[in-house]
Amino acid sequence: MSYQAPLRDMQFVLYELLNGDQILPALPGCEDATREIMDAMLTEGAKLAENVMAPLNTSGDREGCQYDPETKSVKTPTGFKEAYKQFSENGWTALAAPVEYGGQGLPHTLNTLAEEMVCSANLSLGMYPGLTHGAVNALISYGSDELKETYLPKLISGEWSGTMCLTEPHCGTDLGLIRTKADPQADGSYAVSGTKIWITGGEQDLTDNIIHLVLAKLPDAPGGSKGISLFIVPKFLTDGTRNTAFCGGLEHKMGIKGSATCVMNFEGAKGWLVGEPHKGLQAMFVMMNSARLMVGLQGLGIAEAAYQTSLGFAKDRRQSRSLAGPQEPDQSADCIIVHPDVRRMLLRQKATIEGGRALAYFTSLQLDVAHKAESAEEREQADDMVQLLTPIVKAFLTDEGFFCANDGLQLMGGNGFTQDWPIEQYVRDSRITRIYEGTNGIQALDLVGRKLGHAGGRAVKRFFAMLEQYGKDNPDAPHLDDVKGAVARLQKATMWLMQNGMTDREQAGAAATPYLRLFALTAVAYFWSRMALTAQHALNEGSTEVDFYQAKLHTAHFYMAKLLPQTESLLTEIEAGKDSLMEITVAQL
Amino acid sequence: MSYQAPLRDMQFVLYELLNGDQILPALPGCEDATREIMDAMLTEGAKLAENVMAPLNTSGDREGCQYDPETKSVKTPTGFKEAYKQFSENGWTALAAPVEYGGQGLPHTLNTLAEEMVCSANLSLGMYPGLTHGAVNALISYGSDELKETYLPKLISGEWSGTMCLTEPHCGTDLGLIRTKADPQADGSYAVSGTKIWITGGEQDLTDNIIHLVLAKLPDAPGGSKGISLFIVPKFLTDGTRNTAFCGGLEHKMGIKGSATCVMNFEGAKGWLVGEPHKGLQAMFVMMNSARLMVGLQGLGIAEAAYQTSLGFAKDRRQSRSLAGPQEPDQSADCIIVHPDVRRMLLRQKATIEGGRALAYFTSLQLDVAHKAESAEEREQADDMVQLLTPIVKAFLTDEGFFCANDGLQLMGGNGFTQDWPIEQYVRDSRITRIYEGTNGIQALDLVGRKLGHAGGRAVKRFFAMLEQYGKDNPDAPHLDDVKGAVARLQKATMWLMQNGMTDREQAGAAATPYLRLFALTAVAYFWSRMALTAQHALNEGSTEVDFYQAKLHTAHFYMAKLLPQTESLLTEIEAGKDSLMEITVAQL
Repeated sequence: MSYQAPLRDMQFVLYELLNGDQILPALPGCEDATREIMDAMLTEGAKLAENVMAPLNTSGDREGCQYDPETKSVKTPTGFKEAYKQFSENGWTALAAPVEYGGQGLPHTLNTLAEEMVCSANLSLGMYPGLTHGAVNALISYGSDELKETYLPKLISGEWSGTMCLTEPHCGTDLGLIRTKADPQADGSYAVSGTKIWITGGEQDLTDNIIHLVLAKLPDAPGGSKGISLFIVPKFLTDGTRNTAFCGGLEHKMGIKGSATCVMNFEGAKGWLVGEPHKGLQAMFVMMNSARLMVGLQGLGIAEAAYQTSLGFAKDRRQSRSLAGPQEPDQSADCIIVHPDVRRMLLRQKATIEGGRALAYFTSLQLDVAHKAESAEEREQADDMVQLLTPIVKAFLTDEGFFCANDGLQLMGGNGFTQDWPIEQYVRDSRITRIYEGTNGIQALDLVGRKLGHAGGRAVKRFFAMLEQYGKDNPDAPHLDDVKGAVARLQKATMWLMQNGMTDREQAGAAATPYLRLFALTAVAYFWSRMALTAQHALNEGSTEVDFYQAKLHTAHFYMAKLLPQTESLLTEIEAGKDSLMEITVAQL
Repeated sequence: MSYQAPLRDMQFVLYELLNGDQILPALPGCEDATREIMDAMLTEGAKLAENVMAPLNTSGDREGCQYDPETKSVKTPTGFKEAYKQFSENGWTALAAPVEYGGQGLPHTLNTLAEEMVCSANLSLGMYPGLTHGAVNALISYGSDELKETYLPKLISGEWSGTMCLTEPHCGTDLGLIRTKADPQADGSYAVSGTKIWITGGEQDLTDNIIHLVLAKLPDAPGGSKGISLFIVPKFLTDGTRNTAFCGGLEHKMGIKGSATCVMNFEGAKGWLVGEPHKGLQAMFVMMNSARLMVGLQGLGIAEAAYQTSLGFAKDRRQSRSLAGPQEPDQSADCIIVHPDVRRMLLRQKATIEGGRALAYFTSLQLDVAHKAESAEEREQADDMVQLLTPIVKAFLTDEGFFCANDGLQLMGGNGFTQDWPIEQYVRDSRITRIYEGTNGIQALDLVGRKLGHAGGRAVKRFFAMLEQYGKDNPDAPHLDDVKGAVARLQKATMWLMQNGMTDREQAGAAATPYLRLFALTAVAYFWSRMALTAQHALNEGSTEVDFYQAKLHTAHFYMAKLLPQTESLLTEIEAGKDSLMEITVAQL
């Protein structure tokens, strides 16, 4: 069974749960985002993902990308070029970009939903246009008018693509260590020299030009991360000259083999400063933050594809009898979907995916509100939520994307381990999402180190207030006690962090990863209660989609009974503090 | 850094913790297993694993096995043939086999330790001799004298190898469904016809002959699993004739690419019955049970290799500063091993590996006692423990092997995802261990469905009694309260299972996986307390190996503080019962 976009559930979350069809068209500039328009776009996006991108997923993995050292060029897998062309010509690269540069000006939320479908269908292929968003956002925020006019229209149309060149062989997480240099030239440009690694789409055969956004240091740069500047370095200059930015080779990776992960050598390449000198990290975070949210969606997308694959298998594969006695006595055996342990693995996927979808779409909606709402207060509130939830969406959905793919593989037994089925590729492809755009450990440090304390803890207070208000407004909401129990644990952990992590940063570092997970499980519990409440209303109002809404009630029950209990041990783990991590010496490890 | 056998820790567990150097030579027939002999063997085994097998791990993965459809033959990766030859010529295939057939008659425990080292070094290569053990055990237990004399000597010497042919395309877990047939022939042999899949080493170029043990049905067989018989089907008959058992192709897999996973077509192949007609399942369980223990060791072995790789990286890679301030101010950055979150991932590996090693070696020692002790009571007690712990060793150590490899990959960031490092291969290779020889879900059902209730729950009662006795004997043992807390939760869960799982087998099925994990975490906590106690004694007695023993104390602390708390949520999950798994309909999933 091939991938089918879960349109009904996407609509449930966007419209019925989150009122996206009310909120989005009410934002200035987003008046076109009516339910009708959004539905039409989602239907088109689903077709593209299902019929054009998904069929290239397996072949792209087997064929991979090829590097030619003679020409320093990269050949992407067969079919990628045509699929990318269709993607950009259909307007998907321009979706949420500003109208003045040829974009459609639609809400970012629609990008989020498209990203989920694209990454379910073909993560490797989806990464090529994905990185362009970051470049576009950085240019919009920090580029001069000239740079904007030169580069934005073709980046937005998809004729050109963008890259983010941050990592170097000796530094990834700690960008203060970068060595790439930018020497000022007489004409106002810079000569950029250095080596960057893990550059997605650094070289490819999909677009006419490739626009690199490169972190480098000016000659007078102060040390560390305060001395980083951002430069734009195109593969071809506007006069057609080939710039001296060359791909030196491809990484050989565990997964996403259809995505060209390049070593890039900048050999005095001509570039221009984006934003102010030494303020490159700031611009980079603009690229990174939207990228992080999108990577969370990649995790969700792969989990959905894995769920569909393993569900199809479980409905079809006959093996042994139900523990309650034969369910289909005329058959040789029952389908394995009758077994509680198989259902455990299916429901873990379903509950995490649908709950994660609610969390991710909610965060995306807040992003649109943060960018576009008329009132400053509304924008600030929404931005608080985006800042707080972005590392959680990124880390939790990519961890769970990988776990869900693994649960899917596990329930398929030996079949899942063979390349006759797509699921082993989902496991391999999803593995990188826990690492790139900041490892999930870095996301957790971002949460406890930056986001929690920001503005006196305003964001987390708003989050707790939102959950409290929900309980007050809906005293009979399903599973409210479970949610309250989890919230109490999260509050206890937050208090512990305030008391211990402020004075001793290693305490915060020790608690970070379990705290992020506790936060995510609690947030998702809140959304599951809300989804169950929404489903109850629909059933009470006589909806004919009885299976769809009852499934929400049952899945909410599963989430509370089988997944949320993890919050208990996570709190214990957090409160145990740092000692058991730090007392062992390096020699003793 | 390449793999180095953890000999010091293996000795600590075998001798200091478990008194293997007292217990083993006291068993009739094992008098040779003195500490001196065992040390010498371990040192030799370590050399073979480190110098001969480990260097072929990466190349074996990249090259894989090649199938030639013309000759129906399989070529294993370059170097495998020579390494296998050295392995068998050095006596490793004969280690624990009976002296009368050319074996060395040493304890099985030594096999266990060798298996760990071999699988750390090269899982794919280690699987070829690994499967022969099962064939040897089945022949010893059920073969006629003629079959034993014909096949055992060369299987034991390693000149020939054995396979286990169970799975068919439509059945893996449920062997009652097999279709392979065995027709009696006039000469007392049988013509075996059918297709078997996922046959490890079904065809290869390492040995002169391949001896297949094949499950098949006699013409008069009753339906289901009571109609299965076991046959021995050699590739070459004793007169040199090529038998009609052919490899039809190889599986393309996510990992263990150096291991030939074959489709085997039996085309009226000549075979002989092993044991009684229709009693093949019994013989198969003899093969399976020892194989299951060994698969647990594979998980442990890969975890150890992953730990060594990621530890080396963490000691070397400089990135950012310690949260407590620069530790090496003269360097560009501190090594990442200073970070609490990196230590969390390292210690999770270390605590699980060393605790798992204790659990696995303990179970192996019990296996030797069960086979060889003089008193029937002692044998029965030991066998109870083996029966109870085998599914736990298999499932827990393979789940954790995969998780540890993933933690190792994670802390290595983007590097871990590339094939420049061996760790992505460890993740791929270890993935299958959670599936083969019975998926880990099946192990959990074996535990709750067969092992717990056997003989009125005698085994589990003995297990609890052992832990209680330990507490009484060592009231001041480190972390005794933590162990008691976990034991109380395990007892509560066991009681819940007795009350609910007996009358409603779906309740047992719903609880099985979390129950097995709760059991494993509790058992490992007991061993960590014992290891810390042993280390304390050694330090009190003035040992000069201060780092080694202090590391045990610190790692025990970590285990109790950061891993054991999972038992809390596992109990909650178990007590939540089956409803949230079973109430959703198939259509609603």
